[in-house]
Amino acid sequence: MNTLIYGNSRDCEIAFYRAFEAADLSAMMAVWAEEDDIVCVHPGGPRLTGIEAVRESWRSIFAAGARLRLRMTEPLVTATLQTAIHTLYETVSAPAQTRNPISMVATNIYVRTQRGWRLQLHHASAAPEPRQGDATAGAGQPPVLH
Amino acid sequence: MNTLIYGNSRDCEIAFYRAFEAADLSAMMAVWAEEDDIVCVHPGGPRLTGIEAVRESWRSIFAAGARLRLRMTEPLVTATLQTAIHTLYETVSAPAQTRNPISMVATNIYVRTQRGWRLQLHHASAAPEPRQGDATAGAGQPPVLH
Repeated sequence: MNTLIYGNSRDCEIAFYRAFEAADLSAMMAVWAEEDDIVCVHPGGPRLTGIEAVRESWRSIFAAGARLRLRMTEPLVTATLQTAIHTLYETVSAPAQTRNPISMVATNIYVRTQRGWRLQLHHASAAPEPRQGDATAGAGQPPVLH
Repeated sequence: MNTLIYGNSRDCEIAFYRAFEAADLSAMMAVWAEEDDIVCVHPGGPRLTGIEAVRESWRSIFAAGARLRLRMTEPLVTATLQTAIHTLYETVSAPAQTRNPISMVATNIYVRTQRGWRLQLHHASAAPEPRQGDATAGAGQPPVLH
Protein backbone atom coordinates (compact mmCIF):
# COMPACT_ATOMS: atom_id res chain seq x y z
CA MET A 1 0.00 0.00 0.00
CA ASN A 2 2.80 2.37 0.90
CA THR A 3 4.71 2.86 -2.29
CA LEU A 4 6.60 6.05 -1.55
CA ILE A 5 10.15 5.89 -0.30
CA TYR A 6 11.49 8.91 1.55
CA GLY A 7 15.25 9.15 1.27
CA ASN A 8 15.58 11.43 4.27
CA SER A 9 13.58 12.68 7.20
CA ARG A 10 12.94 16.10 5.66
CA ASP A 11 11.15 14.62 2.67
CA CYS A 12 9.07 12.52 5.05
CA GLU A 13 8.21 15.61 7.06
CA ILE A 14 7.17 17.55 3.97
CA ALA A 15 4.89 14.67 3.01
CA PHE A 16 3.43 14.59 6.53
CA TYR A 17 2.42 18.23 6.49
CA ARG A 18 1.17 18.06 2.90
CA ALA A 19 -1.07 15.16 3.83
CA PHE A 20 -2.23 17.10 6.88
CA GLU A 21 -3.14 20.17 4.82
CA ALA A 22 -4.79 18.07 2.13
CA ALA A 23 -6.72 16.06 4.73
CA ASP A 24 -5.58 12.98 2.80
CA LEU A 25 -5.78 9.99 5.12
CA SER A 26 -4.05 7.59 2.76
CA ALA A 27 -1.14 9.96 2.21
CA MET A 28 -1.00 10.68 5.93
CA MET A 29 -0.72 7.05 6.91
CA ALA A 30 1.90 6.42 4.22
CA VAL A 31 4.39 8.58 6.10
CA TRP A 32 4.10 6.63 9.36
CA ALA A 33 6.20 3.61 10.22
CA GLU A 34 4.05 0.51 10.13
CA GLU A 35 4.79 -0.47 13.69
CA ASP A 36 2.86 -1.13 16.85
CA ASP A 37 5.01 1.36 18.73
CA ILE A 38 4.33 4.51 16.75
CA VAL A 39 3.07 7.34 18.95
CA CYS A 40 0.90 10.35 18.20
CA VAL A 41 -0.07 13.05 20.69
CA HIS A 42 -2.40 15.71 19.34
CA PRO A 43 -2.54 19.01 21.26
CA GLY A 44 -4.29 18.38 24.56
CA GLY A 45 -4.92 14.79 23.60
CA PRO A 46 -3.92 11.43 25.03
CA ARG A 47 -1.05 9.31 23.84
CA LEU A 48 -2.16 7.22 20.90
CA THR A 49 -0.09 4.15 20.09
CA GLY A 50 -0.15 1.82 17.13
CA ILE A 51 -1.24 2.29 13.57
CA GLU A 52 -4.94 1.73 14.20
CA ALA A 53 -5.36 4.34 16.92
CA VAL A 54 -3.22 6.82 15.02
CA ARG A 55 -5.17 6.27 11.81
CA GLU A 56 -8.50 6.67 13.62
CA SER A 57 -7.40 9.98 15.11
CA TRP A 58 -6.47 11.45 11.73
CA ARG A 59 -9.64 10.05 10.17
CA SER A 60 -11.60 11.82 12.87
CA ILE A 61 -9.72 15.09 12.37
CA PHE A 62 -10.10 15.01 8.60
CA ALA A 63 -13.75 13.99 8.84
CA ALA A 64 -14.43 17.14 10.85
CA GLY A 65 -14.01 18.91 7.55
CA ALA A 66 -11.70 21.74 8.50
CA ARG A 67 -9.21 22.43 5.75
CA LEU A 68 -6.27 23.93 7.53
CA ARG A 69 -3.25 25.88 6.46
CA LEU A 70 -0.02 25.05 8.21
CA ARG A 71 3.10 27.13 8.22
CA MET A 72 6.20 25.48 9.61
CA THR A 73 8.93 27.64 11.07
CA GLU A 74 12.16 27.44 13.06
CA PRO A 75 13.00 23.81 12.29
CA LEU A 76 15.70 22.18 14.38
CA VAL A 77 17.07 18.77 13.50
CA THR A 78 19.29 16.37 15.42
CA ALA A 79 20.04 13.13 13.63
CA THR A 80 21.91 9.87 13.82
CA LEU A 81 22.10 7.26 11.09
CA GLN A 82 18.87 5.66 12.25
CA THR A 83 16.88 8.40 13.94
CA ALA A 84 16.11 12.05 13.22
CA ILE A 85 14.59 14.31 15.84
CA HIS A 86 12.81 17.35 14.42
CA THR A 87 11.24 20.15 16.41
CA LEU A 88 9.45 23.12 14.88
CA TYR A 89 6.63 25.55 15.25
CA GLU A 90 3.37 24.98 13.40
CA THR A 91 1.16 27.97 12.75
CA VAL A 92 -2.29 26.59 12.04
CA SER A 93 -5.00 28.65 10.40
CA ALA A 94 -8.26 28.06 8.61
CA PRO A 95 -8.59 29.59 5.15
CA ALA A 96 -11.91 31.10 6.18
CA GLN A 97 -10.02 32.93 8.93
CA THR A 98 -12.86 32.59 11.35
CA ARG A 99 -10.34 32.72 14.14
CA ASN A 100 -6.77 33.75 14.69
CA PRO A 101 -3.94 31.41 13.76
CA ILE A 102 -2.88 29.02 16.49
CA SER A 103 0.76 28.36 17.28
CA MET A 104 1.87 24.83 18.11
CA VAL A 105 5.24 23.36 18.96
CA ALA A 106 5.85 19.91 17.55
CA THR A 107 8.32 17.11 18.11
CA ASN A 108 8.56 14.73 15.14
CA ILE A 109 10.79 11.68 15.27
CA TYR A 110 11.68 9.86 12.07
CA VAL A 111 13.31 6.46 11.80
CA ARG A 112 15.10 4.80 8.93
CA THR A 113 13.26 1.64 7.97
CA GLN A 114 13.69 -0.86 5.18
CA ARG A 115 11.22 1.30 3.27
CA GLY A 116 13.03 4.56 3.82
CA TRP A 117 12.45 7.18 6.46
CA ARG A 118 9.14 7.06 8.28
CA LEU A 119 7.44 8.97 11.06
CA GLN A 120 7.72 7.22 14.41
CA LEU A 121 6.35 9.87 16.76
CA HIS A 122 4.43 13.14 16.51
CA HIS A 123 3.83 15.15 19.67
CA ALA A 124 2.24 18.58 19.32
CA SER A 125 1.13 21.03 21.97
CA ALA A 126 -0.16 24.56 22.13
CA ALA A 127 2.51 27.25 22.31
CA PRO A 128 2.02 30.54 24.13
CA GLU A 129 0.21 33.28 22.26
CA PRO A 130 1.65 35.55 21.19
CA ARG A 131 4.98 33.82 20.90
CA GLN A 132 7.81 35.89 22.21
CA GLY A 133 10.23 35.40 19.36
CA ASP A 134 12.81 32.67 19.45
CA ALA A 135 12.57 30.89 22.76
CA THR A 136 16.30 30.23 22.68
CA ALA A 137 16.62 33.74 24.06
CA GLY A 138 14.92 32.80 27.31
CA ALA A 139 12.15 30.90 28.95
CA GLY A 140 9.42 33.31 27.90
CA GLN A 141 6.50 32.92 30.23
CA PRO A 142 7.69 30.47 32.86
CA PRO A 143 5.10 27.79 33.42
CA VAL A 144 3.55 27.70 36.84
CA LEU A 145 3.50 23.97 37.06
CA HIS A 146 6.05 21.77 35.33
CA MET B 1 30.55 19.06 36.96
CA ASN B 2 28.48 16.12 35.80
CA THR B 3 29.97 13.11 37.50
CA LEU B 4 27.15 10.62 37.20
CA ILE B 5 27.18 8.13 34.37
CA TYR B 6 23.89 6.56 33.40
CA GLY B 7 24.37 3.18 31.77
CA ASN B 8 20.96 3.15 30.15
CA SER B 9 18.10 5.47 29.38
CA ARG B 10 15.91 4.15 32.18
CA ASP B 11 18.42 5.10 34.84
CA CYS B 12 18.67 8.54 33.29
CA GLU B 13 14.89 8.86 33.32
CA ILE B 14 14.68 7.85 36.97
CA ALA B 15 17.27 10.51 37.79
CA PHE B 16 15.33 13.09 35.78
CA TYR B 17 12.11 12.56 37.71
CA ARG B 18 13.89 12.34 41.06
CA ALA B 19 15.53 15.68 40.38
CA PHE B 20 12.16 17.08 39.35
CA GLU B 21 10.49 15.91 42.56
CA ALA B 22 13.39 17.09 44.69
CA ALA B 23 13.47 20.47 42.92
CA ASP B 24 17.23 19.93 42.67
CA LEU B 25 18.55 22.10 39.84
CA SER B 26 22.05 20.66 39.88
CA ALA B 27 20.76 17.09 39.72
CA MET B 28 18.26 18.10 37.03
CA MET B 29 20.89 19.60 34.77
CA ALA B 30 23.18 16.61 35.29
CA VAL B 31 20.77 14.39 33.38
CA TRP B 32 20.71 16.59 30.27
CA ALA B 33 23.14 16.27 27.39
CA GLU B 34 25.48 19.23 27.40
CA GLU B 35 24.60 20.29 23.90
CA ASP B 36 23.24 23.36 22.21
CA ASP B 37 20.52 21.33 20.57
CA ILE B 38 18.76 19.97 23.64
CA VAL B 39 15.06 20.79 23.64
CA CYS B 40 12.56 21.22 26.47
CA VAL B 41 8.86 21.96 26.05
CA HIS B 42 6.95 22.42 29.28
CA PRO B 43 3.15 22.02 29.10
CA GLY B 44 1.73 24.98 27.22
CA GLY B 45 5.19 26.50 26.94
CA PRO B 46 7.44 27.46 24.06
CA ARG B 47 10.28 25.37 22.69
CA LEU B 48 13.37 25.99 24.76
CA THR B 49 16.70 25.09 23.18
CA GLY B 50 20.18 24.94 24.62
CA ILE B 51 21.44 24.33 28.10
CA GLU B 52 21.03 27.92 29.30
CA ALA B 53 17.37 28.31 28.39
CA VAL B 54 16.57 24.85 29.71
CA ARG B 55 18.38 25.50 32.99
CA GLU B 56 16.62 28.83 33.42
CA SER B 57 13.21 27.23 32.96
CA TRP B 58 13.84 24.62 35.64
CA ARG B 59 15.35 27.23 37.94
CA SER B 60 12.17 29.26 37.53
CA ILE B 61 9.93 26.26 38.17
CA PHE B 62 11.86 25.18 41.25
CA ALA B 63 12.04 28.74 42.55
CA ALA B 64 8.25 28.87 42.52
CA GLY B 65 8.51 26.61 45.51
CA ALA B 66 5.98 23.95 44.67
CA ARG B 67 7.18 20.55 45.78
CA LEU B 68 5.44 18.16 43.47
CA ARG B 69 4.80 14.47 43.49
CA LEU B 70 5.09 12.71 40.18
CA ARG B 71 3.78 9.30 39.36
CA MET B 72 4.95 7.82 36.08
CA THR B 73 2.77 5.24 34.37
CA GLU B 74 2.40 3.32 31.12
CA PRO B 75 5.99 3.69 29.92
CA LEU B 76 6.71 2.80 26.31
CA VAL B 77 10.27 2.60 25.01
CA THR B 78 11.65 2.34 21.49
CA ALA B 79 15.41 2.26 21.26
CA THR B 80 18.35 1.97 18.93
CA LEU B 81 21.99 1.76 19.96
CA GLN B 82 22.26 5.53 20.12
CA THR B 83 18.78 6.82 20.86
CA ALA B 84 15.95 5.83 23.19
CA ILE B 85 12.47 7.26 22.79
CA HIS B 86 10.36 7.08 25.94
CA THR B 87 6.73 8.10 26.25
CA LEU B 88 4.73 7.93 29.46
CA TYR B 89 2.06 9.53 31.53
CA GLU B 90 2.99 11.81 34.40
CA THR B 91 0.47 12.32 37.16
CA VAL B 92 1.48 15.49 38.96
CA SER B 93 0.17 16.38 42.38
CA ALA B 94 1.09 18.69 45.21
CA PRO B 95 1.52 17.10 48.65
CA ALA B 96 -0.78 19.74 50.11
CA GLN B 97 -3.45 18.48 47.71
CA THR B 98 -4.80 21.94 47.13
CA ARG B 99 -5.97 20.78 43.74
CA ASN B 100 -6.61 17.59 41.88
CA PRO B 101 -3.72 15.72 40.28
CA ILE B 102 -2.94 16.74 36.72
CA SER B 103 -2.24 14.22 34.00
CA MET B 104 0.49 14.92 31.46
CA VAL B 105 1.81 12.94 28.55
CA ALA B 106 5.55 13.19 28.03
CA THR B 107 8.01 12.36 25.29
CA ASN B 108 11.56 11.94 26.56
CA ILE B 109 14.42 11.26 24.18
CA TYR B 110 17.73 9.98 25.51
CA VAL B 111 21.00 9.78 23.60
CA ARG B 112 24.15 7.80 24.27
CA THR B 113 27.01 10.21 24.79
CA GLN B 114 30.63 9.75 25.79
CA ARG B 115 29.41 10.29 29.33
CA GLY B 116 26.64 7.75 29.19
CA TRP B 117 22.96 8.24 28.45
CA ARG B 118 21.64 11.75 28.68
CA LEU B 119 18.35 13.52 28.13
CA GLN B 120 18.17 15.20 24.72
CA LEU B 121 14.53 16.26 24.61
CA HIS B 122 11.59 16.55 27.02
CA HIS B 123 8.18 17.48 25.63
CA ALA B 124 5.22 17.40 28.01
CA SER B 125 1.63 18.42 27.44
CA ALA B 126 -1.64 18.23 29.30
CA ALA B 127 -3.60 15.03 28.81
CA PRO B 128 -7.40 14.88 28.91
CA GLU B 129 -9.06 14.68 32.31
CA PRO B 130 -10.19 12.19 33.26
CA ARG B 131 -8.09 9.92 31.13
CA GLN B 132 -10.07 7.24 29.43
CA GLY B 133 -7.85 4.30 30.18
CA ASP B 134 -5.19 3.19 27.79
CA ALA B 135 -5.43 5.30 24.69
CA THR B 136 -4.29 2.38 22.57
CA ALA B 137 -7.91 1.29 22.73
CA GLY B 138 -9.00 4.25 20.66
CA ALA B 139 -8.71 7.91 20.06
CA GLY B 140 -10.53 8.92 23.23
CA GLN B 141 -11.83 12.42 22.83
CA PRO B 142 -10.97 13.36 19.26
CA PRO B 143 -9.36 16.76 19.15
CA VAL B 144 -11.24 19.41 17.26
CA LEU B 145 -8.16 20.93 15.73
CA HIS B 146 -5.05 18.90 15.05
